[in-house]
Amino acid sequence: MPLAISRRNIFGWKMGQVKLFLDYIRQYVELTGEEEEILLSKVRARNFLKGQYIVQNGDVCRYENFVLAGCLKTFYIDNEGQEHILMFAIENWWIADLGSFISQTPADLNVQCVENCELVQIHYNDLQALYLDIPKLERFFRIIIQKAFVAAQKRIVNNFTLSAVDRYQQFREQYPLIEQRVPQYMIASYLGITKEFLSKIRNQLSTPKD
Amino acid sequence: MPLAISRRNIFGWKMGQVKLFLDYIRQYVELTGEEEEILLSKVRARNFLKGQYIVQNGDVCRYENFVLAGCLKTFYIDNEGQEHILMFAIENWWIADLGSFISQTPADLNVQCVENCELVQIHYNDLQALYLDIPKLERFFRIIIQKAFVAAQKRIVNNFTLSAVDRYQQFREQYPLIEQRVPQYMIASYLGITKEFLSKIRNQLSTPKD
Repeated sequence: MPLAISRRNIFGWKMGQVKLFLDYIRQYVELTGEEEEILLSKVRARNFLKGQYIVQNGDVCRYENFVLAGCLKTFYIDNEGQEHILMFAIENWWIADLGSFISQTPADLNVQCVENCELVQIHYNDLQALYLDIPKLERFFRIIIQKAFVAAQKRIVNNFTLSAVDRYQQFREQYPLIEQRVPQYMIASYLGITKEFLSKIRNQLSTPKD
Repeated sequence: MPLAISRRNIFGWKMGQVKLFLDYIRQYVELTGEEEEILLSKVRARNFLKGQYIVQNGDVCRYENFVLAGCLKTFYIDNEGQEHILMFAIENWWIADLGSFISQTPADLNVQCVENCELVQIHYNDLQALYLDIPKLERFFRIIIQKAFVAAQKRIVNNFTLSAVDRYQQFREQYPLIEQRVPQYMIASYLGITKEFLSKIRNQLSTPKD
């Protein structure tokens, strides 16, 4: 089925971006050509530079963000000003402060680009309209968020039950692409350990045993 | 609008249970009388005794469970046989091993009744059929799971950033009804501390300062 994209949407989008985004959605729900047009008319592709913020704590998170290219981190800043990384996101992941987004209240979290990024952004109001126009998107986001919830619960279990070494090894196995792309101090923050301790773990793991 | 309930569903249900369940759903989506009938024909109310398991790790979690009455806990058993409580559920909460449920693979988690419980159970196959028959349920579960995800993420942040004392105080404020209903050693497990340490915290908090 050929892609029917109205003229207004091509503006600001590269064809490859459109394909990536729709291919991803099609893994979960089948949209008609008309529904794809409606969807594309309500979302925008936008580029961000490394270091730019998508969400800053205290601001309301207005967009759900799908990663076409790049890497981002979600983090919390504690009362001592220390950064705690909650999650990373790379290609084909969604990222936002969901608590802020669904309630449209100020965010507790920050979302920042770790690399230059290409994102698909859906504004809160547009998403509410899309849910009504394309009810299949309810299913799509229901499935996506279920997976995110399961991953978050697994993380709670791991933080309770695994040693730092085991958490690091599991992170490397589960997210090999992320491990290669983000600096070690961010991985340490994600694991809840100091970068010195992570460095020690890495040395231990790379030293061959007798 | 009067409730239209087919005869077969009254069997095994008390009228109060039907009302509680439908009232809860109605907070999120508006169902027609016919849709309510379909829904009720696919779910069952079931009683469990304190101590009974709803899910045991290693078994596939076949049901999503809505709590009409009672209190349950979800926990993980580590390699040393120690129990780590991930969440409690009381009236109007949903509980399952969602990872096992959505993939229909063996559960990592256990779900057990902390009190005698009345649950509404929806079998995996019936829920898939319900999503097709009543697409509004996609919206309903999308919203419910979003909230659960936000709570799980908040818990990860708290575990990273708050002291045990602060985590305990926040738990008491956030879930006052649960704090009164579950034994202290379970709260300690939920907080990731020993029951002796929790007892010390409670003593500190109850001792008036000069």
